[in-house]
Amino acid sequence: MDFTGLSAFALTPLLDDRLDEAAYVRLIENLRVAGVDSIGALGSTGCYPYFSRTERANALRLATEHSGAIPVIAGVGALRTRDVLWLAEDAQKAGVSAVLLAPVSYHALTEDEVFDLFEAVTRELSVPLCVYDNPATTHFSFSDGLIARIAQLPNIGSIKIPPVSAELAPQRVAKLRAEIPAHIRLGISGDASAVDGLSAGCAIWYSVTGGLFPQAALAISRAAMAGDMALARAHSAALQPLWDLFKRYGGSLRVIATAAELLGAVAEPCLPPPVQTLKGAARRDVAEVIETLRLVV
Amino acid sequence: MDFTGLSAFALTPLLDDRLDEAAYVRLIENLRVAGVDSIGALGSTGCYPYFSRTERANALRLATEHSGAIPVIAGVGALRTRDVLWLAEDAQKAGVSAVLLAPVSYHALTEDEVFDLFEAVTRELSVPLCVYDNPATTHFSFSDGLIARIAQLPNIGSIKIPPVSAELAPQRVAKLRAEIPAHIRLGISGDASAVDGLSAGCAIWYSVTGGLFPQAALAISRAAMAGDMALARAHSAALQPLWDLFKRYGGSLRVIATAAELLGAVAEPCLPPPVQTLKGAARRDVAEVIETLRLVV
Repeated sequence: MDFTGLSAFALTPLLDDRLDEAAYVRLIENLRVAGVDSIGALGSTGCYPYFSRTERANALRLATEHSGAIPVIAGVGALRTRDVLWLAEDAQKAGVSAVLLAPVSYHALTEDEVFDLFEAVTRELSVPLCVYDNPATTHFSFSDGLIARIAQLPNIGSIKIPPVSAELAPQRVAKLRAEIPAHIRLGISGDASAVDGLSAGCAIWYSVTGGLFPQAALAISRAAMAGDMALARAHSAALQPLWDLFKRYGGSLRVIATAAELLGAVAEPCLPPPVQTLKGAARRDVAEVIETLRLVV
Repeated sequence: MDFTGLSAFALTPLLDDRLDEAAYVRLIENLRVAGVDSIGALGSTGCYPYFSRTERANALRLATEHSGAIPVIAGVGALRTRDVLWLAEDAQKAGVSAVLLAPVSYHALTEDEVFDLFEAVTRELSVPLCVYDNPATTHFSFSDGLIARIAQLPNIGSIKIPPVSAELAPQRVAKLRAEIPAHIRLGISGDASAVDGLSAGCAIWYSVTGGLFPQAALAISRAAMAGDMALARAHSAALQPLWDLFKRYGGSLRVIATAAELLGAVAEPCLPPPVQTLKGAARRDVAEVIETLRLVV
């Protein structure tokens, strides 16, 4: 697959603490119909590490069955290398086009341990891998040197980098580009940073917002991919109240999951406890922003 | 069970990436023979979140079968509340005397989410629970207010607090003591801080060193429990080169696991990849300290 455009990361909704298959299929079909460039299944937004191996295999099978021609990128992260290898095998059997791997940790990992993990996994893959750098959840920060080493491994297709400020994005992307082979695509995450990342040379936006509101995200992505950064910025600026919610409520997950509940796209509660969607005033804030921005699933 | 004295946390050694049952039984029997006050099975040192439900149930059964009259405290932490409930049930079926629960996170948890987790778990328990505050691995920091709320739940037996400096320990322990019921025991972790915690009023030392070197840890613990803090401090000071290794190599786990390999107590490599024991100069440092301190399993 080609790592470009909008990669839309779906929630993995629950119903009575089990995978809500019907709601999940609706979310995936919504992304197919909208025409996103790829679908991220079981990313952080999809709460991948909270699910069992069987649950994850089921979700991925549903995703590939309902995504049509749109490639599916599957999160295969886990604490233990053995489990990552099993999950990568399951994902490939489910027909995904790529896998996404973050160095999930409980005991903090060293650079060599993370390198060995990526080496062990890429050795077994027949689809490309996206290196998932998400220090907010993994508590591991990739050095540029480690990314450069991992980029030399086989089957590396993309590097998903964390949010970066508008000022630092050009320098950050240029520096990484200089250290990795040309065929590896850089991707930006952190939806509020998307245009900054794409302007700076990222080829793909790994998007949380796009997983629920593909039209709103596609407006930004298509403008940026067409080179009209002013229009992309205008579309992104229009969503500033949403980006503000992400910041106010500890990230995008709870806001997007709450929005999905409020809009009836998923049952309530849709997240795996102990993680919960927002309540009270926070929930009303989300409802207000959805209405103001006229966001539709 | 009474949460006092030395609680010795054992490694969960692997052989060819599977539980090394024979080595695990030897570690547990070593603790029984040494006469520690309780055995911690599947704590952080035992790498609990890296193992499957089945592996964890097997390890706990071996621990209770070989611990004699010594109570076993079992780590039941997991990312998802559902899994914690299952693990707590498995642990009780295996015959443990208490469970240990840390708020393991991938998406950062809120105070209310953590409270709800402990409420859900304590409601189902018929053994006491030790609240495991370990921000270094969970990335969640308990406020004193949250600890006070959780302390009101049924079946709370102990609070395992993180390392604290000698200067701050008395104040820290006194403040917590004032906020929790008298029957709940405070426990110190971070072996280098043990005597400071015990001097300040902690009743139990949750010890990594004690899991491999029970005699060395018992010397400290017994002196402290007898009120001879000068002797306890002298025994702890004698182990300063070991505490220095813990600091230098990112915590106690890799040092103790490397020591266990060097002494032939476990096979090599004994940790679940991607986590690895120490190599090269770091490994030689561990060997040198073992020899200098004449540490024996």
